[in-house]
Amino acid sequence: MIDFSLYVITDERYLNVFNIYEAVERAIFGGATVIQYRAKRKTAKEMFEEASLVREATKHHDIPFIVNDRLDLALAVEADGVHLGQEDLPIDAARRIAGNHFIIGLSTHNLNEVEEASKEKFVDYIGFGPIFPTTTKENPAPTTGTKLLCEAVKISSLPVVAIGGINESNVDEVLKCKPAGIAVVRAAFESGDPYENVKKLREKIEGKI
Amino acid sequence: MIDFSLYVITDERYLNVFNIYEAVERAIFGGATVIQYRAKRKTAKEMFEEASLVREATKHHDIPFIVNDRLDLALAVEADGVHLGQEDLPIDAARRIAGNHFIIGLSTHNLNEVEEASKEKFVDYIGFGPIFPTTTKENPAPTTGTKLLCEAVKISSLPVVAIGGINESNVDEVLKCKPAGIAVVRAAFESGDPYENVKKLREKIEGKI
Ligand code: NI
Repeated sequence: MIDFSLYVITDERYLNVFNIYEAVERAIFGGATVIQYRAKRKTAKEMFEEASLVREATKHHDIPFIVNDRLDLALAVEADGVHLGQEDLPIDAARRIAGNHFIIGLSTHNLNEVEEASKEKFVDYIGFGPIFPTTTKENPAPTTGTKLLCEAVKISSLPVVAIGGINESNVDEVLKCKPAGIAVVRAAFESGDPYENVKKLREKIEGKI
Repeated sequence: MIDFSLYVITDERYLNVFNIYEAVERAIFGGATVIQYRAKRKTAKEMFEEASLVREATKHHDIPFIVNDRLDLALAVEADGVHLGQEDLPIDAARRIAGNHFIIGLSTHNLNEVEEASKEKFVDYIGFGPIFPTTTKENPAPTTGTKLLCEAVKISSLPVVAIGGINESNVDEVLKCKPAGIAVVRAAFESGDPYENVKKLREKIEGKI
């Protein structure tokens, strides 16, 4: 069983302070339980180089590593899984290519998508959001708020990871819905030390997920 | 041995007339020996849907089908190969993921890249170009001309497919270099009937490749 409780996503736009290996390692020291690599503006070659470093750091500390969008990149760096959006490759094709022991996550943005995802036999967990406004994704879906998140957790047969604008000051509200985990990008990496940033979230979560 | 002689590339920007299945089928009737699917502005889901149709058409006529850039898409639609650029995933990772019976092509733009590609034990053929000016690729490399193409064919240990701005009126010049094939996008699909367009090129090539 994968511990999705503190799902930390790297994003090139918010990784200014450290090198990516060190940033990821510090997030893991702070309490990240899953790491996702996400990049939108890089070539596959650049992504391969970075994601290889993230793979090293996560392997070293025995933390599941998931690559966003690109299954080929995920397989190339020997990641543990891939996270797909509604506009990515079909889930069943991804499962066929990647095999049974691969983690496949799917983004959902409304209760209808949660219901559909729950019927998919090849999905391991879903992301749900954006819960709060976020500038991280370039074309974000409308925010769901926590009321819809609570509904999503209730109706989903799959672990639900809440995502979108979650930070230290609003995480308590999110935790009331009892998601399987929270995902963060900026709260971990935008400024300061990823170790301190993630540790603060870890302390908020402790005993509540 | 794959017949690379008339390598026809679909591109969403030049596929206005027919549906993609029909366009590809007509190119095959005209004498295309390889079909490549290329799309730069579509989601993976849209690409999957289109490439699945191209896979159907090529399978129906027993023509090798190659997907540009995205190995995951190539595997998802059960294509015969992938064509990678210098900025895509590393060749050895692609080979490891795709297995030995998969066609892997690599774009090259100068003699140095041709030399490097010739050393790669996992590349099956190279594209070389752009031979002539082209507006098809959004950030094209400087044109090579046919003099460099002739050099490339001489030094390459791999089949060389000439690409970039090739059409009925300049193909003879290209054929003098004795490449393994010519690749076309616009000359096949930009206007008129792909069958007629490709057939004209086929007649020019006959006996010369
Ligand atoms: Ni360490």
